[in-house]
Amino acid sequence: MGVVSLFSVAPEGSITSPKGFQAGGLHCGLKKTNRNDLGAIVCEVPAVAAAVYTTNVFQAAPLKVTRESIASSGRKLRAIVVNSGNANACTGQQGEADAYAMRAAAAKAFGLGEHEVAVASTGVIGELLPMDRVAGGIAGLPAVLAEGNDGAEQFCQAILTTDLVKKEVCVRLAVDGREVLIAGAAKGSGMIHPNMATMLAFMTTDAAVEPQALQQLLGATTDVTFNMITVDGDTSTNDMLVAMASGLAENRPLAPGHPDWEAFAAAFRHVCENLAQAIARDGEGATRLVEVTVEGAVTDESARAIAKTVIGSSLVKSAVFGADANWGRIIAAVGRAGEPVNPETVDISLGDIVVLTGSRPIPFDEEEALVYLQGDTVAIHVALHNGKGSATAWGCDLTYDYVRINAAYRT
Amino acid sequence: MGVVSLFSVAPEGSITSPKGFQAGGLHCGLKKTNRNDLGAIVCEVPAVAAAVYTTNVFQAAPLKVTRESIASSGRKLRAIVVNSGNANACTGQQGEADAYAMRAAAAKAFGLGEHEVAVASTGVIGELLPMDRVAGGIAGLPAVLAEGNDGAEQFCQAILTTDLVKKEVCVRLAVDGREVLIAGAAKGSGMIHPNMATMLAFMTTDAAVEPQALQQLLGATTDVTFNMITVDGDTSTNDMLVAMASGLAENRPLAPGHPDWEAFAAAFRHVCENLAQAIARDGEGATRLVEVTVEGAVTDESARAIAKTVIGSSLVKSAVFGADANWGRIIAAVGRAGEPVNPETVDISLGDIVVLTGSRPIPFDEEEALVYLQGDTVAIHVALHNGKGSATAWGCDLTYDYVRINAAYRT
Repeated sequence: MGVVSLFSVAPEGSITSPKGFQAGGLHCGLKKTNRNDLGAIVCEVPAVAAAVYTTNVFQAAPLKVTRESIASSGRKLRAIVVNSGNANACTGQQGEADAYAMRAAAAKAFGLGEHEVAVASTGVIGELLPMDRVAGGIAGLPAVLAEGNDGAEQFCQAILTTDLVKKEVCVRLAVDGREVLIAGAAKGSGMIHPNMATMLAFMTTDAAVEPQALQQLLGATTDVTFNMITVDGDTSTNDMLVAMASGLAENRPLAPGHPDWEAFAAAFRHVCENLAQAIARDGEGATRLVEVTVEGAVTDESARAIAKTVIGSSLVKSAVFGADANWGRIIAAVGRAGEPVNPETVDISLGDIVVLTGSRPIPFDEEEALVYLQGDTVAIHVALHNGKGSATAWGCDLTYDYVRINAAYRT
Repeated sequence: MGVVSLFSVAPEGSITSPKGFQAGGLHCGLKKTNRNDLGAIVCEVPAVAAAVYTTNVFQAAPLKVTRESIASSGRKLRAIVVNSGNANACTGQQGEADAYAMRAAAAKAFGLGEHEVAVASTGVIGELLPMDRVAGGIAGLPAVLAEGNDGAEQFCQAILTTDLVKKEVCVRLAVDGREVLIAGAAKGSGMIHPNMATMLAFMTTDAAVEPQALQQLLGATTDVTFNMITVDGDTSTNDMLVAMASGLAENRPLAPGHPDWEAFAAAFRHVCENLAQAIARDGEGATRLVEVTVEGAVTDESARAIAKTVIGSSLVKSAVFGADANWGRIIAAVGRAGEPVNPETVDISLGDIVVLTGSRPIPFDEEEALVYLQGDTVAIHVALHNGKGSATAWGCDLTYDYVRINAAYRT
């Protein structure tokens, strides 16, 4: 049985497609343009919730509040409120009070307990939230919530910063013979006065899932999807991924051992992987998606470290931008990853074009390589012949626009 | 007693200034232009030798040969022969044979034992050396060797790739009341068909130094100088630093415990630090030198890891290019370094301009910051208030020219 048969993509779906979820967004005045800057996802029943957070030592105030909500509510959430335009990071006790006030305002607006609400922010660091605008915006959210795709669209717009495209995916599968939907929406890297790339992602499903199982699945899936992308190697203070499972599909609660658990986990991973790739492809200034696959490493963990070193190499990223089949930079990145590598047994391919076998260059058609490297997606394959570990990482090329976007004097 | 009084810079000095050393360079046809591409340093007596090598798993053939020479000769060298234009890396058994042949040819030309000769290469990866040109060039080296600065100048030109400037420094100090000179020459990052940034550095001194002491000093000094610079985070297959001590100053051999050891170590470090800074300042596309100092870390090692994370951040480097006082990117890099940091006690300054105290933003004069950041050198100071560890790292800004240089299709 191939993975393909376990689930199917629902191209018309959105984060409001799973039963029980509404979403919406509006402009409350945090962004200077009139684009949406405040949004919410609300579930009509308490949804089982799981979350992962940035590993950065400096964690923005909303992460503390969300962590506390999920811990205090027995891993249940009814709503997530998100703003863009201001990260509420490095804002001290006032920032923490503001994040709690956002939660309280959202709880009041939606008629929920405070611990049933999660909070996320992205945008400028080191500036206090203009709480009058935020409070006014939150009070207006119930009126814009909708079940259909328009609500999801408005939400997706509200979480973007300078992302060029919204990132959303939905899949369907059968659990206990019932249709289950899993959806996700994410934002990636954008530039705001002073900023860094922040990743926020939100997942909804109408499957019933055991809380512990959802948290473990989220953590394990993040390791091989969101944690395998890099735009510039910088980890934000605000990164957060929250999943909510409404249970309204009325399947028996999913956990390892359930006959459909593997299918659910595969579909869940597809959503995360798809969003992760979309973030990489829409990285600041990117012109193409780069996918690095490493196999034959001593362990999967070792393969992950090597794949991330290659995908993060400025020299490799520049070469991809220049459509330059520069395998010397790839092998040098493999060699500096700090992982066990046999220096005599490395094969490297660019797509189907073999450039290195047994660590020795193979003559290849430069014209064919140029055409391949000018494509939309560049796959770099590294075979180490040193074990059974494998991993895939995603990133993007390093371009003039990356420098332009990030060197622009704050205005 | 201040450090200043231990030694003084000899601005007119070069690697041929220490007694016993000659150097030279010529064009043998490895570079397409008529610039020098082959050079040598020769000592009239067996010099105590020490070396450090790249940590990359893939080590180019010349490193193996140099390592073997120093091990087999009782840590003595009479000559170093260096070529640019071809790295002799990923070239297999033929490449190794070629590196040994370079050593044999140089030994013959200078009338030395093979184990008295070290070999270094920098340039294209994965192409075999055109040994006829190399052999012809080496045969011509004795005729161009000279004791004066012209020989050093020709040598310095021979090791450059696309470095914009040569990097050379000389200091003088007294050991046992005798004048001792320490000099160094280095090359940094350059772009060649397919390439990576390679660092080569060569040091000469007429001090007498115990072999073990020289090796230990070289290793320890490298950790806080050459290993603290980054242009783009990529570690070459060819990096090598070799020091030679002729002993012709006729001091009592230096080692820890000698009354002038500290002065010698300080002068030695000055040479390494100066070359390291010069490499960072001349990084590909760089417009300014960036210096990151971290203090108050739990250990020096922890401070080094944090300083290198900040100096290597593409977002920080882009902000410096844009003269943007973007402290949010600095604190985010500090927080993702994986080292112990108290998130409430971090101070950050840009030069004398304090931008963050106790992890909270301090209002500063944007105009003043802009002027400072447009200068030749940008100093970022991070105080963690978490211990006594400190470190300094050097790098450069990330510019359009970096992308241009590294994205250019190989021609």
